[in-house]
Amino acid sequence: MPQNRQIVLDNRPQGEASVSNFRLVTSDTPELAEGQVLVRHHYLSLDPYMRGRMNESKSYAQPQPLGEVMIGGTVGEVVESRHPKFKAGDAVVGMGGWQEYSVVDATIPGNVRRVDTTHVPLSYYLGAVGMPGVTAWYGLVKIINPKAGETVVVSAASGAVGSAFGALAKARGCRVVGIAGGPDKCAYVVNELGFDACVDYREHKDYISLSKALKAACPNGIDGHFENVGGMVLDAVMLRTNAFARIAVCGMIAGYDGAPLPMSNPALILVNRMRVEGFIVSEHMEVWPEALTELGGLVAQGQLRPRETVAEGIDSAPEAFLGLLKGKNFGKQLVKLI
Amino acid sequence: MPQNRQIVLDNRPQGEASVSNFRLVTSDTPELAEGQVLVRHHYLSLDPYMRGRMNESKSYAQPQPLGEVMIGGTVGEVVESRHPKFKAGDAVVGMGGWQEYSVVDATIPGNVRRVDTTHVPLSYYLGAVGMPGVTAWYGLVKIINPKAGETVVVSAASGAVGSAFGALAKARGCRVVGIAGGPDKCAYVVNELGFDACVDYREHKDYISLSKALKAACPNGIDGHFENVGGMVLDAVMLRTNAFARIAVCGMIAGYDGAPLPMSNPALILVNRMRVEGFIVSEHMEVWPEALTELGGLVAQGQLRPRETVAEGIDSAPEAFLGLLKGKNFGKQLVKLI
Repeated sequence: MPQNRQIVLDNRPQGEASVSNFRLVTSDTPELAEGQVLVRHHYLSLDPYMRGRMNESKSYAQPQPLGEVMIGGTVGEVVESRHPKFKAGDAVVGMGGWQEYSVVDATIPGNVRRVDTTHVPLSYYLGAVGMPGVTAWYGLVKIINPKAGETVVVSAASGAVGSAFGALAKARGCRVVGIAGGPDKCAYVVNELGFDACVDYREHKDYISLSKALKAACPNGIDGHFENVGGMVLDAVMLRTNAFARIAVCGMIAGYDGAPLPMSNPALILVNRMRVEGFIVSEHMEVWPEALTELGGLVAQGQLRPRETVAEGIDSAPEAFLGLLKGKNFGKQLVKLI
Repeated sequence: MPQNRQIVLDNRPQGEASVSNFRLVTSDTPELAEGQVLVRHHYLSLDPYMRGRMNESKSYAQPQPLGEVMIGGTVGEVVESRHPKFKAGDAVVGMGGWQEYSVVDATIPGNVRRVDTTHVPLSYYLGAVGMPGVTAWYGLVKIINPKAGETVVVSAASGAVGSAFGALAKARGCRVVGIAGGPDKCAYVVNELGFDACVDYREHKDYISLSKALKAACPNGIDGHFENVGGMVLDAVMLRTNAFARIAVCGMIAGYDGAPLPMSNPALILVNRMRVEGFIVSEHMEVWPEALTELGGLVAQGQLRPRETVAEGIDSAPEAFLGLLKGKNFGKQLVKLI
């Protein structure tokens, strides 16, 4: 059996996460039991939610146990199978974690899923046609539910969720405005992703200033917003909402390090009769087939071709992950393992 | 025609409202035109929303114009009619404002509505079977939509909205917990209104402390909350919410004087997958008939007999209103005019 290099969580962050929280270990892959498959990972997905799992505190998800392989989505190929429905060479997606191989019990529904790479690159099943894409779909379709002509906004617009959100909203006839960090990302959001406008939050010191820039980008106000960030960005968006605006809350990345991150003016929820709703896409598995079908179609038709940032080798994962938390990636952050 | 004493808004508050913002004037009531009725007001309703109208700033509602009679709900009797469907002696409810008489165009639907005082005292049409009751109904039924056995919480529990909320929630099999200011109000909420528990927010210096008291009163967590206050109360409730909790935002009274009132931990919206929704009951006229029918039934059956605080005479209205803003009233605040 092959040697397997793995990243485990060694200790929990005090404040900001660092590479010293992780440890690289090497182990043998075990013999397969009946019903199991051995998957060789081609790509590992890095996502902001992983930061929350590193804390011990009660959250919506179980904390990542110390000394165990970090949780994470993976795509790869089956190299050995003791399950009748899988064979060597199958392209599959699963939650293999931060390691080069995983042994998966294929008898449990959802543990490993075969995917078709004819029209969709394998790595996209971790992004546009995977969890981030479905996340964008759920927030847009099930919470914001925009009418054609409405203005919708998404923070972290250049990322995996934001790019999918943009394509889905354009397909519904919305004016789509992104918020991103830096001129390169903003240019990409408009020129390559096809957003109508993008506001660079780094040009603004406070939410009042950012809000003025949003006013120019959203002359008819904001009807729907997809929040990946929180803090100043959410405060600025709230000031520009129209009556009956809907806000899907998907991420509060700026608060993960433990700093309190208040909402400056919650009275706007009443003044503008807003609906603010938090969600976790893994609790809505019923929408995945419909969402993945639409997202796969957008990719196949060339309407969704998001950028990827690819780190090389499992040992690069911690550094790449910390970069993701600081917004250093450009588009979907992956680790290429083969 | 009778002389009519009226309270007009003389100038806008700088910070806290005061009696000097109001002015008493006397005028003749005009001759009736075709389709009009003259109503003699028995009771004027005082409500927190009026404070928002006193400001010039953009809000969901038009500001109260300077020099005009203050807006407000009234019940009374028709003393003269030039509309075929109304006659002298009819008991009616309307938005007559802070004055002793009003001349109403009865040809406009909703301007004046005849009410039945057989089983429901006239003044209740300003409270339990009026706008406050329907407000409670909308937040509970349309936003929180609780299942039997769930725990629901309401702030300003001893008030007109809170007391109706309690009766409606008990009728649906909920555990109902109030938040109110002072031991007298809390005892009343439990002993007379029939809540399961009531927490005195005045015993707590910060939201962490208040949250601990809520934990004891809500051993199974909080599934739904009706927010009349905002600030520390909302922060404390949010810490105790269960997954998929619903918060109906109806009032932010503590913020009316212009002090910024942040939400301490909005990340809880994501962590607990909450839905937070603001609403204004006047935008949902379609629910009024169903809501008023249920509320009238609860009153007729003795399940909803909320207390009233009654000031005497139109000249007492400003003082009574300022007392309401400070929580000095006990139950629905009225001004008796006859």
